[in-house]
Amino acid sequence: MVALFKASSACYIQSQHTTSTKRRRTHDVVRIRPPPPPRSSPLRIAEDMASKLGLEITIADLERLFRQAPGGHPPPPAADAGDHGGRPPVRVAYQGGRGSYCQEAAAKAFPPSSSWQQPPALIIPCSEMEEAFAALEDGAADRAVVPAENSVDGPVPRNLDLLLRHPRVCIVGELVLPVNHCLLSLPHAPRSALRRVVSHPQAISHCRDRLRALHLQVEEVASAADAARFVAENRIADTAVIGSQIAAHEFGLRVLENNFQDLAGNFNRFLQLGLAGSTGAVVSEPNLDDNDNNNHKTTVAFSLERGVSDLFRAMWIFESRGVRVARVDHRPNRSKPVRVEEREEAGEIARFDYVFVLDLDGNASDTNVEAALARLKEIAGFARVLGSYTCTSSLA
Amino acid sequence: MVALFKASSACYIQSQHTTSTKRRRTHDVVRIRPPPPPRSSPLRIAEDMASKLGLEITIADLERLFRQAPGGHPPPPAADAGDHGGRPPVRVAYQGGRGSYCQEAAAKAFPPSSSWQQPPALIIPCSEMEEAFAALEDGAADRAVVPAENSVDGPVPRNLDLLLRHPRVCIVGELVLPVNHCLLSLPHAPRSALRRVVSHPQAISHCRDRLRALHLQVEEVASAADAARFVAENRIADTAVIGSQIAAHEFGLRVLENNFQDLAGNFNRFLQLGLAGSTGAVVSEPNLDDNDNNNHKTTVAFSLERGVSDLFRAMWIFESRGVRVARVDHRPNRSKPVRVEEREEAGEIARFDYVFVLDLDGNASDTNVEAALARLKEIAGFARVLGSYTCTSSLA
Repeated sequence: MVALFKASSACYIQSQHTTSTKRRRTHDVVRIRPPPPPRSSPLRIAEDMASKLGLEITIADLERLFRQAPGGHPPPPAADAGDHGGRPPVRVAYQGGRGSYCQEAAAKAFPPSSSWQQPPALIIPCSEMEEAFAALEDGAADRAVVPAENSVDGPVPRNLDLLLRHPRVCIVGELVLPVNHCLLSLPHAPRSALRRVVSHPQAISHCRDRLRALHLQVEEVASAADAARFVAENRIADTAVIGSQIAAHEFGLRVLENNFQDLAGNFNRFLQLGLAGSTGAVVSEPNLDDNDNNNHKTTVAFSLERGVSDLFRAMWIFESRGVRVARVDHRPNRSKPVRVEEREEAGEIARFDYVFVLDLDGNASDTNVEAALARLKEIAGFARVLGSYTCTSSLA
Repeated sequence: MVALFKASSACYIQSQHTTSTKRRRTHDVVRIRPPPPPRSSPLRIAEDMASKLGLEITIADLERLFRQAPGGHPPPPAADAGDHGGRPPVRVAYQGGRGSYCQEAAAKAFPPSSSWQQPPALIIPCSEMEEAFAALEDGAADRAVVPAENSVDGPVPRNLDLLLRHPRVCIVGELVLPVNHCLLSLPHAPRSALRRVVSHPQAISHCRDRLRALHLQVEEVASAADAARFVAENRIADTAVIGSQIAAHEFGLRVLENNFQDLAGNFNRFLQLGLAGSTGAVVSEPNLDDNDNNNHKTTVAFSLERGVSDLFRAMWIFESRGVRVARVDHRPNRSKPVRVEEREEAGEIARFDYVFVLDLDGNASDTNVEAALARLKEIAGFARVLGSYTCTSSLA
């Protein structure tokens, strides 16, 4: 599959090919449009001017001046590598295809203007969750963005399983975004020409009431983003797609309606992942819009000698130290999926065994959190901090 | 779809037709083979003999005598309705098709010899989980058996969502069974003729190492049971299927290997469901094999004013009264999926909100459990006992 997509002012061809023996895809990214001529960055121009005036001034000095100016922000980055001190772009793998909600999250997490020091992020689609993890492990990506939960449908447990299987991968950020299901159609087709609406079953289930009112045929497809591309490429005038805003942008479709979902409070939670101890090309984790709010979280996974019986005791370790447990999850303990318990009245009972995953409010380096984690490690069969990171909520 | 299946000595045709407006299927069950002639039951014969000898003895007396005899078990039930005092069979809906693991669980939960008072259960396949719930609500089934969890892959959350949406449906039993993935093929085809193995992705993932050793092509299919039927009906000699033992039995396939899965400790957990306050044709919940062990559980679902922040407090209500919390789950709170919290340092934060589901050791009528549930209801936004029931573990 060859997918064409734009990353800011540069345009790339992305070619995915399946390596069947490994059962995952690798990516080759090829720049197909020459970069714009150099010297286009305001900072570079200012540096040139300073040099002509005989001033000893560096890019870093200029950036500081820009920041200190009233209402000053660092200037937007230009597209050529030279403008970023030769820095390579951050490569962000995301789970999903072009036009997917996860691409939208990756673009939100790594916006073009997030840091003037860095060229626009290179957003890399991965058809499977495993691919995004493999891209991190292989060094093909610096960051990955994967879906973690939908507030109406529940968690996507696969990423927790993969985090447990990839001990080098850790959570470096969390992003909570409102879902915006858009009703998309061909730009110039009359609305009266519509005969059907297609989308992924999850999106359809989110828009059931609104769809009923349309009195159109409703069909489920495996990928809303692929359906949007198909409608655009084949100029299909009688079919609308429930898809993301980024799908409209990517494929040139018209947004007939924004926020087409039935329920308020429909949010997606995404995790940003990275390799432990490696920042790759990431200068700093992005600070998102001023409208977004951040809080600090730590996620810890552990197993317990006596399974669920000891979960309350484990939670007590945190709660008794004033560390709030903000989430309690469990996944199968694949190394020992079932424990057999001898019960006086009932004989031998099979109990499923788990790896428990707690989200805690606070940084792993906070005194209370640190002390509680140390105590947990004393009673746990195994314990691993999956990440200590900032959670960013975008409420609108 | 017309599915032919056998329920003990009687044979039924099951016709499923889709009512498209309701988007779920209804079932018509038609007996197509006449019942065997009456008087075949040993109990009935004994009653006849007693009557001829002028003894005033009832079927109940005879059953007691059978039970008291050394090594005595009640005699197996005969197939005619007359032998069961005209009782209709228990109708058990299960999620899955003919030959599925859930059919195996339903057959295990309602074995032909479970109660001599009752004719063999009528096992009704349902292609969707929703259908099994609808069958209970409509009165088309007395009981439903649905998958709840696999010890290696984790829970099937959909049944919890459906339980929350169907307040009349409750859990009446739980069944933990070891998974037995069988390698199935045509009975007389030589093993050397095999070129490929097909199954559902989950079964394939459970048998990955064993499959690798076979050096055969591996293909994923949507339903292992349907694949087994296809192989049998079309006499396909070059394809093996990883499927259930009941699929071998249903479609006349040979079991090349039992327990083909890689990991020990691969178990399935099923829930038996019924309508609250209604037993339908069920005389008593079945007592399974003597090898199986039972313990009592209560499942309660509730929401909390302050969400996860109060979960520890809710668990404390039980733990402080000596009631062990044996499972902690949560599902989206669809009536209020997200709460916005004001945090001093971080502004407004979006927190996902949940309905929490706890499994407790003990009966809802046990003094401690009852007191704890009463206390929980005082602090919970809503609270509902989803069931108080026996959990049966079959360890081998």
